[in-house]
Amino acid sequence: MNHGFTIWFTGLSGAGKTTISRLVEADLRGRGLPVEVLDGDIVRQNLSQGLGFTKADRDTNILRIAFVSKLLTRNRVVTLVSAISPYRETREMARKEIGHFVEVYVKCPLDTCIARDTKGLYRKALEGAIPYFTGISDPYEEPLEPEIVLHTDQEAPQESAARIFSRLKELGYLL
Amino acid sequence: MNHGFTIWFTGLSGAGKTTISRLVEADLRGRGLPVEVLDGDIVRQNLSQGLGFTKADRDTNILRIAFVSKLLTRNRVVTLVSAISPYRETREMARKEIGHFVEVYVKCPLDTCIARDTKGLYRKALEGAIPYFTGISDPYEEPLEPEIVLHTDQEAPQESAARIFSRLKELGYLL
Repeated sequence: MNHGFTIWFTGLSGAGKTTISRLVEADLRGRGLPVEVLDGDIVRQNLSQGLGFTKADRDTNILRIAFVSKLLTRNRVVTLVSAISPYRETREMARKEIGHFVEVYVKCPLDTCIARDTKGLYRKALEGAIPYFTGISDPYEEPLEPEIVLHTDQEAPQESAARIFSRLKELGYLL
Repeated sequence: MNHGFTIWFTGLSGAGKTTISRLVEADLRGRGLPVEVLDGDIVRQNLSQGLGFTKADRDTNILRIAFVSKLLTRNRVVTLVSAISPYRETREMARKEIGHFVEVYVKCPLDTCIARDTKGLYRKALEGAIPYFTGISDPYEEPLEPEIVLHTDQEAPQESAARIFSRLKELGYLL
């Protein structure tokens, strides 16, 4: 292939996006492929400092990630984006911009995410200390036709990663 | 090489950065190399909308370009950055971040840039209609040890491009 592809992990905070993307990253590197990870939090530091979490700011952040993913993808890099990216229309814009796009919906019931509360953010959000918190005080629009849906409340991260690899083969992105 | 390199064009507005980088781009593509161009104006639309031209905002913009250049450069892409980038220290930060870095000082006397006034911006700046305009109401810090200095008031764009290619060979970036 004279291009790479982007695996776009979307889902609630705590659903498992970063954990699974790290597993996928390690496996892809093991295959000798060029890989970059654009993690929502890290990208905010490097590309979007000053932006907040209103719809307009979230959209701007996502479109910046999409711009960088496009540049990497067309230069043969497998790009893993891990970002809540709650708005369907904005994800569709990213898909269109990037072209070779695999949307992975990292699905997990809100109650499970709250129970996990990996970063302690849900407690704060439920106390009202964090405004615009996805799932609590801000919307999450589920993908309608993602390439893959993971059920991270029912499957281990390794299983989720394995399912992604099967799907990538089906889609012709991997041998 | 398992990496690319970044050619960083710095200089006043109207000095010839974009013109020369386009010539270099075409030549590199002709050699079959993967190339991306990060032009200051285009990058501002995609990564830095909302930022202005204070030192802080200019620095933020340049560091975003450097972040993207780093990702491309370490994935074998030859990245051409064309941005006024007036501050020496910020360019040094970009150099350190990116690693494989060729600084091209596109040197042209201010009077010549004003006489050319390609975009009609100098006239406006001299009338006071554009604040923070490099060379008029904002500083430009010349590079102290750039890899190349071009003198665009004395040489044609094709000559400047040819000099860049000689230097890239000297530096071991091209055969």
